[in-house]
Amino acid sequence: MIIKILGSAAGGGFPQWNCNCRNCADVRRGVTGLEPRTQSSLAVSIDGRNWTLLNASPDLRQQIAATPELNPASLDPPRSSPIKSVVLTNADVDHVAGLLNLRENQPLFLYADRRVLSALAQNVIFNVLDEEYVARVPIQRDRMFEPAGCPGLGIEAFAVPGKVALYLEDEKAGSDFGTAEGDTIGLKLIDLRTGRFACYVPGCAAVDDALIRRMTGAAVILFDGTLYSDDEMILLGLSQKTGRRMGHISMSGPDGSVAALARLQADRRIFTHINNSNPVLRKSSPEREWVESAGWEVACDGMEVIV
Amino acid sequence: MIIKILGSAAGGGFPQWNCNCRNCADVRRGVTGLEPRTQSSLAVSIDGRNWTLLNASPDLRQQIAATPELNPASLDPPRSSPIKSVVLTNADVDHVAGLLNLRENQPLFLYADRRVLSALAQNVIFNVLDEEYVARVPIQRDRMFEPAGCPGLGIEAFAVPGKVALYLEDEKAGSDFGTAEGDTIGLKLIDLRTGRFACYVPGCAAVDDALIRRMTGAAVILFDGTLYSDDEMILLGLSQKTGRRMGHISMSGPDGSVAALARLQADRRIFTHINNSNPVLRKSSPEREWVESAGWEVACDGMEVIV
Repeated sequence: MIIKILGSAAGGGFPQWNCNCRNCADVRRGVTGLEPRTQSSLAVSIDGRNWTLLNASPDLRQQIAATPELNPASLDPPRSSPIKSVVLTNADVDHVAGLLNLRENQPLFLYADRRVLSALAQNVIFNVLDEEYVARVPIQRDRMFEPAGCPGLGIEAFAVPGKVALYLEDEKAGSDFGTAEGDTIGLKLIDLRTGRFACYVPGCAAVDDALIRRMTGAAVILFDGTLYSDDEMILLGLSQKTGRRMGHISMSGPDGSVAALARLQADRRIFTHINNSNPVLRKSSPEREWVESAGWEVACDGMEVIV
Repeated sequence: MIIKILGSAAGGGFPQWNCNCRNCADVRRGVTGLEPRTQSSLAVSIDGRNWTLLNASPDLRQQIAATPELNPASLDPPRSSPIKSVVLTNADVDHVAGLLNLRENQPLFLYADRRVLSALAQNVIFNVLDEEYVARVPIQRDRMFEPAGCPGLGIEAFAVPGKVALYLEDEKAGSDFGTAEGDTIGLKLIDLRTGRFACYVPGCAAVDDALIRRMTGAAVILFDGTLYSDDEMILLGLSQKTGRRMGHISMSGPDGSVAALARLQADRRIFTHINNSNPVLRKSSPEREWVESAGWEVACDGMEVIV
């Protein structure tokens, strides 16, 4: 199984259009040790010819252009694409806006939780994905399915502690803003020939025992790397929100992901969906050294992972 | 007045993700005389420090990153942007999807016809542009306004023959699919210090006398360059739609834009919003030579126009 990390940044990307924090300012002026990153999307394939996208970031057109495998080959018909299906893990802008790039009457299967499909249905703009060409298929959690057009690939979705998308938050619904199960899912990506699997969890508010059980046995873990510490955006003067408020666990601290996932035995653990405020984006930083010494990698755009 | 062409392609961009026509295939493999283009957006400024965007293409994040003037300067606060306002000319995906890149609580003024604001309001996803920060202001046609934060710039919108956005087409509403006045507008961009002005008309179904009167006296014309000939997408096997069906006039032919606009006396006439099927995208083509010999330029990304 081949996994291509098309975009490794959280919402807004790196740099973010209106952000002038030290990370964003330095990456703009080309400081060594920092590299630009587009927003969170992956592509996965068994045969290298037929691909499933995992999330569709706002930067998807740029990401496809930068990835030869995702473009039509020279002898293909006038309209064609190696992208056969798309699976969404939530309804956040950084994971669904890129669907608008997949218009132009191309047959495609779109898989998501009913909660996420319902969020899309509240937006008439997604009708540019004409139902005549694009099937919207609800995912049954905890049951493996084989995404259309990608032979040899199995996917199983599971619920993950999270938060409903920002634009659907209901202030009156209490401290969880109306979040329900299915608003955030993780994906088990299975090579059906070998049984080896990876787990992809780009958004996660907390690691509980159920999640640990789910990821046990994974050869590769691709995990929510939004923030290094819960209050980093507040300390940098960028936002009034903690990671907890945004539905993202931090890397560091006693409840952080590095500690919580330490007992998993994976060949590779990779942080992705990294926010522009995160100090691990700087190669020489002590925070980067700390996550690497704990056995984690920090994803970059174009990274290829073989499972 | 400075106009930067951020993106000069029509919807889908050049190359388009699922297109394997000769133009797209050749630009992908780097054939001389063809260059990639992102989707239709402009930026305009009088002082070079405060900018108004004209349309927000799906590629806006990439376009901002490629345009130093549109990024925070080194001494700016942690969150800031030289982009102060956005004006939309219709509700097509290639002109509005980029609004989703302008999230993150940045104060901004968004101007559009009531018809276009109503299309946005039908999509809850645009609520990521929090009304606390982003004011949505209806444009009065035929009355000049000064977009907030861009001193010295005047804009006047005028109705243009066109078509309602694809995702809002009403098959039951007859041959115009429910199109109403205001669905497509053109913009007169006025330097209030000098009175000189440019006209920006990225979508236009036909040139009538009212439109000619509007554009008379313009120093620069930026005009709908979607197709060279009405049936080119059909002949290339890309679509079953003519330009007329899509709401776009062609460049060539007795009713084409080159003939219809020949009597205007502008310093520069520039085609933008160019579809991937258009033969003028190829520098050495007879079609490119023909439009150039008629006094037209073909826009490319990053082009700067001083009015």
